[in-house]
Amino acid sequence: MILQQAQHIKFLEEDLNYIFKDRELLTEALTHKSFKKPYNNERLEFLGDAVLDIVVAEFLFMKFKNKKEGSLSKMRASLVNEVSFCKLANAIKLGNYLNLSVSEENNGGRLKPSILSNALEAVMAVIYLESGLLEVKKVFYPLMENEFHINEDSLLQDYKSALQEYTQEVFACIPTYELISQEGPDHNKYFVMQVKIQDKFYATAKGNSKKNAQQEAAKLTLKILKNEI
Amino acid sequence: MILQQAQHIKFLEEDLNYIFKDRELLTEALTHKSFKKPYNNERLEFLGDAVLDIVVAEFLFMKFKNKKEGSLSKMRASLVNEVSFCKLANAIKLGNYLNLSVSEENNGGRLKPSILSNALEAVMAVIYLESGLLEVKKVFYPLMENEFHINEDSLLQDYKSALQEYTQEVFACIPTYELISQEGPDHNKYFVMQVKIQDKFYATAKGNSKKNAQQEAAKLTLKILKNEI
Repeated sequence: MILQQAQHIKFLEEDLNYIFKDRELLTEALTHKSFKKPYNNERLEFLGDAVLDIVVAEFLFMKFKNKKEGSLSKMRASLVNEVSFCKLANAIKLGNYLNLSVSEENNGGRLKPSILSNALEAVMAVIYLESGLLEVKKVFYPLMENEFHINEDSLLQDYKSALQEYTQEVFACIPTYELISQEGPDHNKYFVMQVKIQDKFYATAKGNSKKNAQQEAAKLTLKILKNEI
Repeated sequence: MILQQAQHIKFLEEDLNYIFKDRELLTEALTHKSFKKPYNNERLEFLGDAVLDIVVAEFLFMKFKNKKEGSLSKMRASLVNEVSFCKLANAIKLGNYLNLSVSEENNGGRLKPSILSNALEAVMAVIYLESGLLEVKKVFYPLMENEFHINEDSLLQDYKSALQEYTQEVFACIPTYELISQEGPDHNKYFVMQVKIQDKFYATAKGNSKKNAQQEAAKLTLKILKNEI
């Protein structure tokens, strides 16, 4: 068991190209609350969430110098979310190294986006605490650039893509968008779009173009699906 | 005008106990979009938002080592919001130093919480970019500790206090809470509270105690008032 854990850490270090200093803290980061130890990765995840937020924000701030705040926020939303972080966690096979309870294990815990995304945040918090923000950037930027197409077009697609990834995973289907109405004078037109998933209606939203209305409707639907509103 | 600006920067530097290196970047941070220059503080605010998020998260993570993620998140919510940041901005008289359009100026722009809070974030982003996160902590922690009582009790009051500060400022009154119902068996009771402001109903929410139900209802009301939902 201990030998296996050492092997796991070695694999993780190789994938991240980073040597962990504090093995206890790393164990905390890899321990899900279901494991029923006096420690788990929830506190580290709290910190790691903020760590990845600034790391991604700074990346976009530096890379897209001519982009306004609104676009930067949208791009960030497409990178900083459970689906994206889960993808990064899978790229470093983080699920294999987690300490979970037997029942969470049997419940598919090693594949759950929320568990993987939180563990990724917790691991990044460990690197931040023991080595600082610069080291997190050195680890995280290559990982992010390997897994995502970091350009305006792909990042500004954000909510629609995120919703599609989510529905494919959860419902094994893609959402459909329907134009409900189109109102206002020519110089100030707006469009109302609705989202359905498996013929069930989720949300409507308006925007100054069909594309923007779809984005807004997708955003709202994601919030509804994740019980955020 | 230029003399006055130099004087302003001197005051700000004294209050923050920090000497700015890049005056152009600082000018950008102090320039509201209404001023109609090719630059304004919106991009810096985007970055500064993440800077203050990690700075506050790390502060709480280190200070409250026995607190779980849920409590840390609530404490952060009580520190990282427009009302709190506005208070900090006022403590360093940031409103006096902003570049605003005449109409925004006449419209009370120097006192607006959103403008002040955003400018504070932008100024912290400047310190981050030119001197790093450690320097932001050196500047921000004393400011925060001077203005807030950073202890569990005061911080876990979060949403109710934030709502009260908001309604006092915007409506010149305080919100009222009413117990609507109390349901469930003794071991699993829950309470439903409603919030009214000036006799207008805003939201109801439930919780496993009256206090928690009030917090949830306050949180929801704040979101409604700020058009976040």
